[in-house]
Amino acid sequence: MEKVSEVRCFDGWQLRYKHRAASLNCVMHFSVYLPPHAETQRVPVLYWLSGLTCTDENFVTKAGAQRYAAEHGIAIVAPDTSPRGDNVPDDPEGAYDFGLGAGFYVNATQPPWSSYYRMYDYIVDELPALVAEHLPVDAGRESVFGHSMGGHGALTIALKNPGRFRSVSAFAPICAPTQCPWGEKAFTGYLGNNREDWQAYDAVELITAGARLPPLKVDQGRSDNFLAEQLHADRLIQACKAKGIAADIQYRDDYDHSYFFIASFIGEHIAFHSAALSAQ
Amino acid sequence: MEKVSEVRCFDGWQLRYKHRAASLNCVMHFSVYLPPHAETQRVPVLYWLSGLTCTDENFVTKAGAQRYAAEHGIAIVAPDTSPRGDNVPDDPEGAYDFGLGAGFYVNATQPPWSSYYRMYDYIVDELPALVAEHLPVDAGRESVFGHSMGGHGALTIALKNPGRFRSVSAFAPICAPTQCPWGEKAFTGYLGNNREDWQAYDAVELITAGARLPPLKVDQGRSDNFLAEQLHADRLIQACKAKGIAADIQYRDDYDHSYFFIASFIGEHIAFHSAALSAQ
Repeated sequence: MEKVSEVRCFDGWQLRYKHRAASLNCVMHFSVYLPPHAETQRVPVLYWLSGLTCTDENFVTKAGAQRYAAEHGIAIVAPDTSPRGDNVPDDPEGAYDFGLGAGFYVNATQPPWSSYYRMYDYIVDELPALVAEHLPVDAGRESVFGHSMGGHGALTIALKNPGRFRSVSAFAPICAPTQCPWGEKAFTGYLGNNREDWQAYDAVELITAGARLPPLKVDQGRSDNFLAEQLHADRLIQACKAKGIAADIQYRDDYDHSYFFIASFIGEHIAFHSAALSAQ
Repeated sequence: MEKVSEVRCFDGWQLRYKHRAASLNCVMHFSVYLPPHAETQRVPVLYWLSGLTCTDENFVTKAGAQRYAAEHGIAIVAPDTSPRGDNVPDDPEGAYDFGLGAGFYVNATQPPWSSYYRMYDYIVDELPALVAEHLPVDAGRESVFGHSMGGHGALTIALKNPGRFRSVSAFAPICAPTQCPWGEKAFTGYLGNNREDWQAYDAVELITAGARLPPLKVDQGRSDNFLAEQLHADRLIQACKAKGIAADIQYRDDYDHSYFFIASFIGEHIAFHSAALSAQ
């Protein structure tokens, strides 16, 4: 693991690293914000999973999260959204919603994707182990959140690892990827044509099948262009209701799918995670 | 004036407009954040002047200012940093520090620049008149701030228009452009070889010559790569001291020249301007 950059920010450090990722068979970059508290103690860690087309840097420059992370004493780790590099296969037409920038936080089973696109293992195992080994975090205090494709990643990763994450939240998540064009395209490519294999990566399916969830918070803009066709927050609300899961899922009038929406509510999300992460 | 985009942000609106700018002989874009208060009343207005290579959008996406503008009920107008368009002359070698993206907030006197590069007139007269005509701002309550080249712009515009701006602040401003490579190159190109003509756009020279200043706040990172050669905060401190001007000019350990530095202190700057703008 090699430090690529370090920049002072809100009395902490915005850091960027690169490392060879075994699960992805390539060199990956990730960003970490360390709050001032990390100078003297191990701090809780919050994983941010970004959406389609993003790298590790969009969140870092646009979300305005550092202020709140500094306030609450939480580290934020922001990984990239797919394997990267000249040797990594990409969508043949360079589509934005499959291949590079669109790993969908699954372990691909179909060649050629299966040799590289194992983002689930990377986010759940490899990256946290690396972070715990090299950075002043308290690996026993982890939470996860994300946006759009990364909201899907955060929800499914929390659902598939009960007891591991203290809390989970999402902005405009893809709630039911097996039932929307983005998810159908990605899952067909990465997981094959058998739709039963897809259900293990669908938050609504997992909840309906009885998977447990830590405290959940979701915000969804009502003016989000992707809401009706791709995101389906209503199905998440219904699935939680059917299982008696108390979740804080809010529609926000006039807000869209952008980082301006994320920035507007990122403080509330970090405060939500901080409460869960600081509980004994 | 045509609206290009509007995005909900912190319960206000992040807006972008384009218009034909007479002073610059081209079509210009600018961004405006309107806080929630602007739905029902005219709000004070703060002009942000960006640094080299920026457009109107860098500040909008990276500074995290909207949160504080929403809190204090202030509109922030962010113009571009030079005239734009295929017909606008640029540095023959496409240098980042002259021509497009590098207007230096002066009125050029040398051809071919003088037909387009009149950023001083644009910022001081044309843009505020347009904003006052079309947007719910209280034009009698204006302040100005900026970064690097835009910090130079904010300081000199405040100094050259005594009584107009309620307050002025800057992040890592070019304090004495007549005495640094960036300023020498730009002023030679825009204003010609007579160094006496440059002094009207040099904050340290203007202060030394007795120009008045509204309340002033400056932050300067000590790890800023441009500090020693280009920025010269010490000369601003000395010039203020020599004239008995009480200014809040702070060095910040470890901070660099980036928007991470700006984001870290933008809240304090907006609070500073808010106090001046809300005074009766």
